[in-house]
Amino acid sequence: MNQYGTTFPLWRASAGVHWDAFVEHAFVSQLADGSLPRAAFLHYLRQDYVFLIHFSRAWALAVTKADTVSEMRIAANTVQALICDEMELHLRLCAEEGLDEETLFATEEDPANIAYTRYVLDAGHSGDFLDLLVALAPCVLGYGEIGRRLDPAATHGAYSDWIKTYGGADYQETCEAVGALIDGAVARRLGDNPQDGPRWTALCNRFRIATRLEAGFWDMGLAAG
Amino acid sequence: MNQYGTTFPLWRASAGVHWDAFVEHAFVSQLADGSLPRAAFLHYLRQDYVFLIHFSRAWALAVTKADTVSEMRIAANTVQALICDEMELHLRLCAEEGLDEETLFATEEDPANIAYTRYVLDAGHSGDFLDLLVALAPCVLGYGEIGRRLDPAATHGAYSDWIKTYGGADYQETCEAVGALIDGAVARRLGDNPQDGPRWTALCNRFRIATRLEAGFWDMGLAAG
Amino acid sequence: MNQYGTTFPLWRASAGVHWDAFVEHAFVSQLADGSLPRAAFLHYLRQDYVFLIHFSRAWALAVTKADTVSEMRIAANTVQALICDEMELHLRLCAEEGLDEETLFATEEDPANIAYTRYVLDAGHSGDFLDLLVALAPCVLGYGEIGRRLDPAATHGAYSDWIKTYGGADYQETCEAVGALIDGAVARRLGDNPQDGPRWTALCNRFRIATRLEAGFWDMGLAAG
Amino acid sequence: MNQYGTTFPLWRASAGVHWDAFVEHAFVSQLADGSLPRAAFLHYLRQDYVFLIHFSRAWALAVTKADTVSEMRIAANTVQALICDEMELHLRLCAEEGLDEETLFATEEDPANIAYTRYVLDAGHSGDFLDLLVALAPCVLGYGEIGRRLDPAATHGAYSDWIKTYGGADYQETCEAVGALIDGAVARRLGDNPQDGPRWTALCNRFRIATRLEAGFWDMGLAAG
Repeated sequence: MNQYGTTFPLWRASAGVHWDAFVEHAFVSQLADGSLPRAAFLHYLRQDYVFLIHFSRAWALAVTKADTVSEMRIAANTVQALICDEMELHLRLCAEEGLDEETLFATEEDPANIAYTRYVLDAGHSGDFLDLLVALAPCVLGYGEIGRRLDPAATHGAYSDWIKTYGGADYQETCEAVGALIDGAVARRLGDNPQDGPRWTALCNRFRIATRLEAGFWDMGLAAG
Repeated sequence: MNQYGTTFPLWRASAGVHWDAFVEHAFVSQLADGSLPRAAFLHYLRQDYVFLIHFSRAWALAVTKADTVSEMRIAANTVQALICDEMELHLRLCAEEGLDEETLFATEEDPANIAYTRYVLDAGHSGDFLDLLVALAPCVLGYGEIGRRLDPAATHGAYSDWIKTYGGADYQETCEAVGALIDGAVARRLGDNPQDGPRWTALCNRFRIATRLEAGFWDMGLAAG
Repeated sequence: MNQYGTTFPLWRASAGVHWDAFVEHAFVSQLADGSLPRAAFLHYLRQDYVFLIHFSRAWALAVTKADTVSEMRIAANTVQALICDEMELHLRLCAEEGLDEETLFATEEDPANIAYTRYVLDAGHSGDFLDLLVALAPCVLGYGEIGRRLDPAATHGAYSDWIKTYGGADYQETCEAVGALIDGAVARRLGDNPQDGPRWTALCNRFRIATRLEAGFWDMGLAAG
Repeated sequence: MNQYGTTFPLWRASAGVHWDAFVEHAFVSQLADGSLPRAAFLHYLRQDYVFLIHFSRAWALAVTKADTVSEMRIAANTVQALICDEMELHLRLCAEEGLDEETLFATEEDPANIAYTRYVLDAGHSGDFLDLLVALAPCVLGYGEIGRRLDPAATHGAYSDWIKTYGGADYQETCEAVGALIDGAVARRLGDNPQDGPRWTALCNRFRIATRLEAGFWDMGLAAG
């Protein structure tokens, strides 16, 4: 089974129980079996729209920090995919609830939401391209992993649209591209044995922190149910 | 009574109940009467050390975004005051508990801590000098207001050192300087009637959000008690 | 005749002779009549490829500094237009000379090139969205103005490809969109009478400085002839 | 003889003739023997004041990108040293010519000046702490090397104040501290054999580019004579 490259599985393993707490969170299993209260889902969806705004900003920041034109183009394509394609799910589902985009954009952010997106942005500003990528990775690839796992359930159920979006071919392709981007970025900056270098521990720390903040995002959604 | 300039009282008023919830938080009253559990205080102190690290980074960012040499110097002096003077309290009190600076620096940040400091840094990166100052203001001037209010109690009690630091002349002087810096920055960028201009509402929003994140920091401390 | 909105003509007028020195530069008239030495054009083209890399980075920075989702999308679309469409001219013409993209990307930047692109990026980092836009404007809209003026000559001549690119409908449409983006950004931040506000002079200064750096870019091209 | 640490001599050697062209520039030898035209010196001095403003901003940016509290403090101290101590020379000499600080601050920057300072700032924004340090190094340590070399001439001559500033104990101490900061930053991020790692070439490139931009700054001064 594809693991989105060779670096991600190492980071994922280093996060240990924190990774499992994120991808196997109660919010996710309730999404999968349709038992998630609608209020929890809608609170999550509104927060996630604002999350995607700041996540797009973080990918745009990556464009400014790339070392090659190929890194730039992948990051720029991801910005487009986020603010055009992925957000389309949020806009459509929220429109069904009578919420237009301007209202969504003005959503008061939950502290758990602020914590993750601003942590990612600061990872980029304080470090280099790789410090930014490692903080972006848990969200992009975690959603990919969840989407792929839940995929069989996607044809029915209250939240099948969500599952289809992240389990679908387009999103999985984005994950492959991001996994390859990470592998290339690691090779360019850390060489062939990144795990032996002095930055590896710090990168794993960033990955774990970002993973925990992702789990906090599910907590926030569940608490609104 | 001095209000730290003319802009701060307006922002403070605009935050309404959120401001009161921050400066009159149970954590503060328990600090004042000495009833705050030691564990809560120490958790707060360790988190606050890391907070000051990132807060210093935000003031250093302000140096890079200033429009005048005077704005630069005040911001640079504040960085020095934070990482030399204000931290001294944390280092001394933590040393009494057997914690050295390296251990403190490695403190795993609570999400409530991450949320506030990274919000402030992002306010600076996404906006201008003023967007940064308005996000810094609730912490700097709120602590000044609390310190001044608690001052009479400062000569005894378990947390008198803390109260003396923020109620003391040095810190109050910093607050006056920051209040004047804000007034000057507002005049230079928004003119004589800032409340009539299109940015005023957005600045008040930032102030309210930062104020709420400050209250969340007290919540975090209290929860560790 | 369309002026790319209402703000640009004011900035343009404020730059006075510096604007004329840029858009009526000898490099431009020699491009128009085909008398520009090939060596000068090729030096310019290689430098301009690297310029576009950093200019794309500056537009990506704008994505991170936008206040509305509409501002974000226009900025993100401009990044795409630059690194996909506009660069296509450079890649095609340079390929005819035997230069591939990797070689182009590794071009040692001329100081005149560094000066302009890094000035724009720093305008963004030190200020807000508007400080960035005003530094981007002379290049985007100046090329539009030049392209439109030279258009009748575009069907023949050594440099007709260049002229067709900037005089063509796609690029002119980008200029309209950027002009509208600027007008909206000014209204949102400076209100209805931006010329009366305290930031107007500083914005005009930025525009003039960026305009002079653009003229310096032509000087650099011409000197390589 | 002290070489300001172990990394700097390697970077210096990698820049080869570009380094010599900078530290043995005609501007420098004319400073040393007093033959530099006064107009050239004053033009340089005014530009250098603005240079120091942006150089201080770059050191403040370093505070925001440090990995340890010790790195933060050294960077913060350097900001103070620049905008308090080193600038004092410029302010004093310019005051003798009837120029006050506000006038100096408003100096229209020469493109050669813009190119170097904004290149350094962008090195910081696009990369990590080390990318920023390597771009700062040629100026800080080059001036140290020049000051130390010219020192014997410092007791007389038209430009003895300048020579005393950079050849003096205070400035030389700053250079030692910066050299040690660089060595530590390299060890923390690149390990014990930095020259074998994938980032070394890129760092040497940055050093060479910054060195050439420094030489361009002398050219600018000389051209004003």
